Amino acid sequence: MATSALLYPNLTLGEDGHLLFDGLDTVALAEKYGTPLILLSEDRVRAHCRTYREAIEAALPRGSRALYASKALSFRQIYPIVESEGLGADVVSPGELATALSAGFPAERIFFHGNNKTDADLRFALERHVGTIVVDNQEELARVDELAGEVGLCQDILLRITPGIDPHTHAKINTGRIDSKFGSAIETGAAEAITAAALAAPHVDLRGFHCHIGSQIFDATPFLDAAEIMISFIARVRSEHGFTADTLNLGGGFGVRYVAEDPEVDIAAHVRVLGEGIARACEAARLECPRILLEPGRSLVADAAITLYTVGSVKEIPGFRNYVSIDGGMTDNPRYTLYQSKYTMLTANRAADPADFTATIGGRCCESGDLLGEGVAIARPARGDLLAVLTTGAYTYSMASNYNRVCRPPIVIVHDGEDRLAVRRETFDDLMACDL
Amino acid sequence: MATSALLYPNLTLGEDGHLLFDGLDTVALAEKYGTPLILLSEDRVRAHCRTYREAIEAALPRGSRALYASKALSFRQIYPIVESEGLGADVVSPGELATALSAGFPAERIFFHGNNKTDADLRFALERHVGTIVVDNQEELARVDELAGEVGLCQDILLRITPGIDPHTHAKINTGRIDSKFGSAIETGAAEAITAAALAAPHVDLRGFHCHIGSQIFDATPFLDAAEIMISFIARVRSEHGFTADTLNLGGGFGVRYVAEDPEVDIAAHVRVLGEGIARACEAARLECPRILLEPGRSLVADAAITLYTVGSVKEIPGFRNYVSIDGGMTDNPRYTLYQSKYTMLTANRAADPADFTATIGGRCCESGDLLGEGVAIARPARGDLLAVLTTGAYTYSMASNYNRVCRPPIVIVHDGEDRLAVRRETFDDLMACDL
Repeated sequence: MATSALLYPNLTLGEDGHLLFDGLDTVALAEKYGTPLILLSEDRVRAHCRTYREAIEAALPRGSRALYASKALSFRQIYPIVESEGLGADVVSPGELATALSAGFPAERIFFHGNNKTDADLRFALERHVGTIVVDNQEELARVDELAGEVGLCQDILLRITPGIDPHTHAKINTGRIDSKFGSAIETGAAEAITAAALAAPHVDLRGFHCHIGSQIFDATPFLDAAEIMISFIARVRSEHGFTADTLNLGGGFGVRYVAEDPEVDIAAHVRVLGEGIARACEAARLECPRILLEPGRSLVADAAITLYTVGSVKEIPGFRNYVSIDGGMTDNPRYTLYQSKYTMLTANRAADPADFTATIGGRCCESGDLLGEGVAIARPARGDLLAVLTTGAYTYSMASNYNRVCRPPIVIVHDGEDRLAVRRETFDDLMACDL
Repeated sequence: MATSALLYPNLTLGEDGHLLFDGLDTVALAEKYGTPLILLSEDRVRAHCRTYREAIEAALPRGSRALYASKALSFRQIYPIVESEGLGADVVSPGELATALSAGFPAERIFFHGNNKTDADLRFALERHVGTIVVDNQEELARVDELAGEVGLCQDILLRITPGIDPHTHAKINTGRIDSKFGSAIETGAAEAITAAALAAPHVDLRGFHCHIGSQIFDATPFLDAAEIMISFIARVRSEHGFTADTLNLGGGFGVRYVAEDPEVDIAAHVRVLGEGIARACEAARLECPRILLEPGRSLVADAAITLYTVGSVKEIPGFRNYVSIDGGMTDNPRYTLYQSKYTMLTANRAADPADFTATIGGRCCESGDLLGEGVAIARPARGDLLAVLTTGAYTYSMASNYNRVCRPPIVIVHDGEDRLAVRRETFDDLMACDL
């Protein structure tokens, strides 16, 4: 039985051995929409949003909130879902901001991030009255101040600070260290310098600080360490500059279970630990607790989605390995090519069969590195079979490319036993839309 | 002087210290079109095409030809350029095929590649009368044969063979080994088996064989090794199956000089060496020389283009390093993130200044791995300066994504001292075109 591959409760087995997603037959959905196909469970996204909301209400100061990190998966229909669950949104570009606004997301609940915002980006955000700009560096602070003056407003800002935490994750997705392109480091004095500059700037209203320590973190400890460093920084700023931050944004980074060996993540327990630690640290610093913002992205959407592919060839190369070719790959999910990220997979039309075939899953691009996994255990497939790759809601569609002029797949949202197209499949006309 | 960064003769210095591209001021072009901006020299692409054409005419059997490997850079206006220089085209997806055809490229000169062609892909190619399908595997052969029968034609095909050559390049771009998702290996008997099957299939006309040993190869030797193995295979097929191949496609892979330390590549000399070796091998095998096809992509377009970016922040982190943020990065050029590929860069509006500042070039994405280079020597830039990254014609735009909902840049072609927009910049509406 391949049932150990059914990592989440919304994945079940049909009587005919088909993989069911939120109770719907994946084989039927693949026939209806074609492959590759991304299925997203709205109920699962909503459940994750509620877990965060309830944990935050129970354990963190009043006004604390989760912001949906758009970069994990940004398309119009995701915004009404997270908005109706009471979340704010974090955007990292005018493109994400435009998408959120076009879906009716309230501008005042949006935080605009990014290590390099152009003047055009800043003007776009200011003119649309984005709630908060998270300012990364001194040059940007000067531009926000000047452009806010031109637009005629005083812009709420946070400052991005690097607390110098290494959460021991993959170097490429580890951003809270001092040696980082992001933010201003406390240790070098840059954080205090930009704080002083922000307090002196006439067209910005400094509300507090932001940090982000990394990704795929399975433990509350690094967040707690970061929170303690940030609270101690806030206390120092209060005593040296007379400014008390009312907001501390701790960024995102809680891990997601991609394979059975990954730990299960108890978000509520982690938030509780964090809340207790923050309360202790604030008390020790004789500081009123600022409101806490968290920015989950991956942990809201990753395990709410799967991607379905059709198998092309199966090559058994004696003495080497077995290659299974699929009709997608690095174009719709570059995470294995980029990070060698592990995924759980199963042959969706024979999901009850034993996963006794060890395969390298090759994408359709003319590039050797276009793989989705190596040493993956699945039921032996043949051309025409359906391969399901789990946990593909985050950093897959959002990172997708048209490499080899491959069209990007559609996203189908499943909700209350109904499927609906939320993002349509790209066409050849789309590929040539910018070609003159 | 930063003139050692002027790797190619079409890059020169203006009197005001601006970088000139084919004689045009890059600062003026950046102002006209905005940044990021890709500039492509049509004259340089044409010159490279001619180098191949003349070398092939001089050194390889009659009928030999270069095919432009679309995957390096596929957009409508590239096709009339390579077509008018007498090249064929290699496409790896129906999207590339549709683009080439929509630009008027003759179908009969197109070769359709790919390790996993779906039935829909094959039907699309057959119905448009693509000249040759390069068949990767047995399942695909069966489908081509059946679908060609349905469409009512006998399809010219080549078979993709893996000769078992390791050209000692980066593993991710090394595709001629036996342990590969591509093709059928000679050593395992798979190549001979698929040849027998192709000869027996009623709706395909086997014309010969294809191999591709890898990328960024600076020496003719691996190609010669591959050619000798393939010729020996062709001779064996002749004696055992009575079939004489008239076409041998040796794929692509000649290297390009990205940094001053890379060798200069003398394509004409390599083709001459290859031609002599092929003649010797055919004579030894008492084989009439098949026509030879080569599939350059990178070596036609890579060093014909540069990308211009605007600098945002410059962060000097004492004891660590200097980060220079630009308004693009892995979204328009993922090669550093994927392969740690090295590039030559210069501060384009002060290109005569000494390159005495060592920088890590950070892209605009909220991802630590979004870098374009580390330890890069440039003139110290400030916000608003222009950074030129050289040799960006291949595998940059073609691999670009909308990660972080960043819009993809335009391509401007420079020809005869004139600039023209060939691919327009994406807009927010483009980003949301598929969002329902």
